[in-house]
Amino acid sequence: MTSYVPFDRRDLDFLLHEVEGVAALCRHPRFADHSRETFDATLDAAAELAMAKFANHNRASDVSEPHFADGRVGILPEVKEALDAYAEAGFSALLADAEEGGMQLPYTVALACDAMFAAANVSTAGYALLARGVANLLQAHATPAQCARYRTPILQGRFLGTMCLSEPQAGSSLGDIRTRAEPAGDGHYRLSGAKMWISGGEHDLSENIVHLVLARLPDAPPGVKGISLFIVPKFRVNDDGSLGARNDVQLAGVNHKLGQRGIVNTFLKFGERGECFGELVGAPHQGLAQMFHMMNEARIGVGVGAIMLGSAGYRYSLQYARERKQGRQPDQKDPASPPVALIEHADVRRMLLQQKARVEGALGLAMHAATLVDAHGQDPDPARRAEAHRLLELLTPVVKAWSAEACLEANDLAIQVLGGYGYTREYPVEQCWRDNRLNPIHEGANGIQALDLLGRKAMMDGGAALKALLREIAATAAEAGQVPALAEHALALARAAGLVARTTGVLGEAMGRGEVRLALANAPRYLRLVGHVAIAWTWLRQARVASAATPASQADRDFYAGKLAACRWFFVHELPTIGHDAALLAALDRCALDTPPGVL
Amino acid sequence: MTSYVPFDRRDLDFLLHEVEGVAALCRHPRFADHSRETFDATLDAAAELAMAKFANHNRASDVSEPHFADGRVGILPEVKEALDAYAEAGFSALLADAEEGGMQLPYTVALACDAMFAAANVSTAGYALLARGVANLLQAHATPAQCARYRTPILQGRFLGTMCLSEPQAGSSLGDIRTRAEPAGDGHYRLSGAKMWISGGEHDLSENIVHLVLARLPDAPPGVKGISLFIVPKFRVNDDGSLGARNDVQLAGVNHKLGQRGIVNTFLKFGERGECFGELVGAPHQGLAQMFHMMNEARIGVGVGAIMLGSAGYRYSLQYARERKQGRQPDQKDPASPPVALIEHADVRRMLLQQKARVEGALGLAMHAATLVDAHGQDPDPARRAEAHRLLELLTPVVKAWSAEACLEANDLAIQVLGGYGYTREYPVEQCWRDNRLNPIHEGANGIQALDLLGRKAMMDGGAALKALLREIAATAAEAGQVPALAEHALALARAAGLVARTTGVLGEAMGRGEVRLALANAPRYLRLVGHVAIAWTWLRQARVASAATPASQADRDFYAGKLAACRWFFVHELPTIGHDAALLAALDRCALDTPPGVL
Repeated sequence: MTSYVPFDRRDLDFLLHEVEGVAALCRHPRFADHSRETFDATLDAAAELAMAKFANHNRASDVSEPHFADGRVGILPEVKEALDAYAEAGFSALLADAEEGGMQLPYTVALACDAMFAAANVSTAGYALLARGVANLLQAHATPAQCARYRTPILQGRFLGTMCLSEPQAGSSLGDIRTRAEPAGDGHYRLSGAKMWISGGEHDLSENIVHLVLARLPDAPPGVKGISLFIVPKFRVNDDGSLGARNDVQLAGVNHKLGQRGIVNTFLKFGERGECFGELVGAPHQGLAQMFHMMNEARIGVGVGAIMLGSAGYRYSLQYARERKQGRQPDQKDPASPPVALIEHADVRRMLLQQKARVEGALGLAMHAATLVDAHGQDPDPARRAEAHRLLELLTPVVKAWSAEACLEANDLAIQVLGGYGYTREYPVEQCWRDNRLNPIHEGANGIQALDLLGRKAMMDGGAALKALLREIAATAAEAGQVPALAEHALALARAAGLVARTTGVLGEAMGRGEVRLALANAPRYLRLVGHVAIAWTWLRQARVASAATPASQADRDFYAGKLAACRWFFVHELPTIGHDAALLAALDRCALDTPPGVL
Repeated sequence: MTSYVPFDRRDLDFLLHEVEGVAALCRHPRFADHSRETFDATLDAAAELAMAKFANHNRASDVSEPHFADGRVGILPEVKEALDAYAEAGFSALLADAEEGGMQLPYTVALACDAMFAAANVSTAGYALLARGVANLLQAHATPAQCARYRTPILQGRFLGTMCLSEPQAGSSLGDIRTRAEPAGDGHYRLSGAKMWISGGEHDLSENIVHLVLARLPDAPPGVKGISLFIVPKFRVNDDGSLGARNDVQLAGVNHKLGQRGIVNTFLKFGERGECFGELVGAPHQGLAQMFHMMNEARIGVGVGAIMLGSAGYRYSLQYARERKQGRQPDQKDPASPPVALIEHADVRRMLLQQKARVEGALGLAMHAATLVDAHGQDPDPARRAEAHRLLELLTPVVKAWSAEACLEANDLAIQVLGGYGYTREYPVEQCWRDNRLNPIHEGANGIQALDLLGRKAMMDGGAALKALLREIAATAAEAGQVPALAEHALALARAAGLVARTTGVLGEAMGRGEVRLALANAPRYLRLVGHVAIAWTWLRQARVASAATPASQADRDFYAGKLAACRWFFVHELPTIGHDAALLAALDRCALDTPPGVL
């Protein structure tokens, strides 16, 4: 299958232009020099680079994973070639200001580029995305001098970076981190401690690595309120930007993962020799808030990574199902009749539709969340900015956790379509599945996302964010209700939104009377409920555009018909499952809460 | 975690003795020399051997998978040590007659032994199970001379065997196989063709390999009615039992799989030099029927393999969740309070309960299906024998496909409980997940099982098998309804059985009026529906025993309470999801059927 492309450029164009109308972002002064043409040119360049320099070694970097020998991490040369080409083409500075050499593009367009790199090679793309996250965080919280030392070289593609949050004894529980930072007297801090699960923690892919490290100052209060953020470079940076001495950051081990093997995952020790120097970012004890500033984008990024692995598996299994001939229809009794293509079997189409409905539904929601990042940043109306931010806060855990779970299941279906071949390492679908298994775990495990959604986001400001989402959903349902072919879906969506509102009310009341553990006991079901409704909303938005479109070709006609078929699938097969979720939540089910650990 | 055991011997005892009462099988003449004591002694020996010789290299044989060099397959020496010890202890002949050196045990007890070997090392156990399948098939269909040449050495552990069904161009579609067999004049046949996905196809683990090969005779009609079965040994066997010349069976390639790597999976070519000799088994053109004779046991074996991988993951994640301290309760605001064990979090208990409910529920159904094998073979009453066979035919695709899907999902949850650690190859849960991914594919892909269940098994003899199952379920519900604590579940089960009956009626009517494609379009949902109801039935059977038991210790009290908690979980969280399945099936939903391939 030589023509296999793991992403659907047509679908990205559809979402960006036909559904979200991103060209309208150019009305904002920040994007005034842009146009649909510059957006498309950037997407074209990303698509080409993703296929030429990222997809080319996706399998190789899984087989030849980074290895630790003689104190160094050996990484396949294609990874550096890809990252150099990426920086060369300006992708390291997609979001940055023009005056610092950036492209000054909307986040939504950047995310669409990210999506194609992730589809092509989620591991190699991971180095670049981490570096962007570090650069963004520095821009938000560091001093101009710190930005000059650390951010500018990242934008130029000379430095990469990491986020050092977790520790071996404290995975999801950041309040328990123990890494310490003591003033060194010269404005620097001496760090000591150990960090686990650090992606990109050691390599020779870049001149330097900028570690962003959470640590405790001597006077720090316990828990999350006593965490500060430090810049800890692999090589110290002189005032003129030249590299100084090697800092005391030691690679203590390399984790051997199930998937995403191309991006080295490390165990790092800071200050083993007492010589690890860092710079404080912003005020003391603000580390977690500073990190959380980046969390929405990082989590949307994880969601999109999951979606694009889903896309890669979907597209491969789709192409395979068209080409592979096997079996006959159940009512074909003549054994001499020729076998049909796999896609002729209803159950194979079911497995493809299910993948499509999840992948393209989730991508629609992620792209919409991206527009909220841009609206929050650029809208001239403070009320609309605030509304966009509220919605973004609410949708972020959904984009992360729902996409990770649903698109991992999509990869499982891709394997099943290929059958025995899908179970071999000669075909790419098993790697998609392994790579994708990380996404429900990292950037806050899905269980944590569910607690965040139900315990914080849905309840904040008297439920303002959820009310805003439900208003938007009601508006979409009202509009789609005017289209006869979509009226039934519109009604189902409006009802589903009502179910979310009522269920949230019951849970909120329980929390209000102090039954916090009980209300949160089935939080993942709540995330599933809200997620299904949000994805159904996204599908109805897509279906409305598709049903109103005037196709210019047979390919176009098929594209829009595919959107309507996938939307129908989601409304008929997936959305109705929320009834059971809502019933259990509203009943404040105690099954898991009341089961004593000793009986398991 | 030094004390980790991947299976629960207590649970096997519970199912065998307390639920199924297998000691009563000793009333049959075939098992008259047995007793609960001999059963237990066999199980003890299996448990000990599984831990000592199978679990010991489960990881190593994943890492150092069989490799093909200089025309030979190199396999870790521990695999041969395990299989030799297994044969030495008599496990190769568990089912065989005493007069041929066998233990003459019930299939149910043998399956419980299999379960422990599979939990310890599904790949190494696979060689032994394949050999047993070959020996059983020979007993059923081969001549005494053939049995002496090929079966006896298998029972002695000197030979292993394979099933050669699939070909590269015809995975699930056996009617399309092309391997040919021509009479050689001396009573033998010359075979020519290629077979794909052959587990255990080449190795030096045994003196010889007995391939059972499906092929077409020159006068064969097309399709499945023209398939004959041949014995094709790796080394030809002389009349005195000594080994003769190497047969013309060539190893053409080794498949590199995602999991179950310890059992070599091969691509074999027969008769490349025109010198591949085989013996016909039974009459010509009966090959598929002969193979299907073994299919129920093979498919139950696959189901049990899936369940025991589920068990391995459940037990590891359970132990990890007890030992690992992380985080606090959501209403614990004091950051200085000590972290709690993972199992204290409701959502972690949810992930454990969900695993337990699936694993132990599915094991209950598989063990019950095994008792049907014994009843079919031994019951003196022909009507009861026939009834057992009907039920077995119906339940087999459910045991295979439902268990494979549900227990793969259980492994996914085990990874999630471990978080980042679960994603590394340092912990065993990721291997469980990879190993288990094969089970929805092999021995008839799950989609094929669903067509078998709905298109054949549920409809055969005017629905007699399904009616028999529903009668049994109704009887269990009636009995459990007398226990106040189970009355609610009993009512739910009776309703669920009614839903199965009504849904089957609608689908049967559609088939009756010729709408076969439409009726079968959502066959996997039908299997899910029947599977959920059958598992709920199994849980209610277990719960009834647990609620009536008189615990002898705190461990016993916890065990029975755990059964009741998992039963409750299944009835509250899992069973109600069938409402949606049944509604879509009864509506003869056309989403997948009507979606044109071109729009995907």
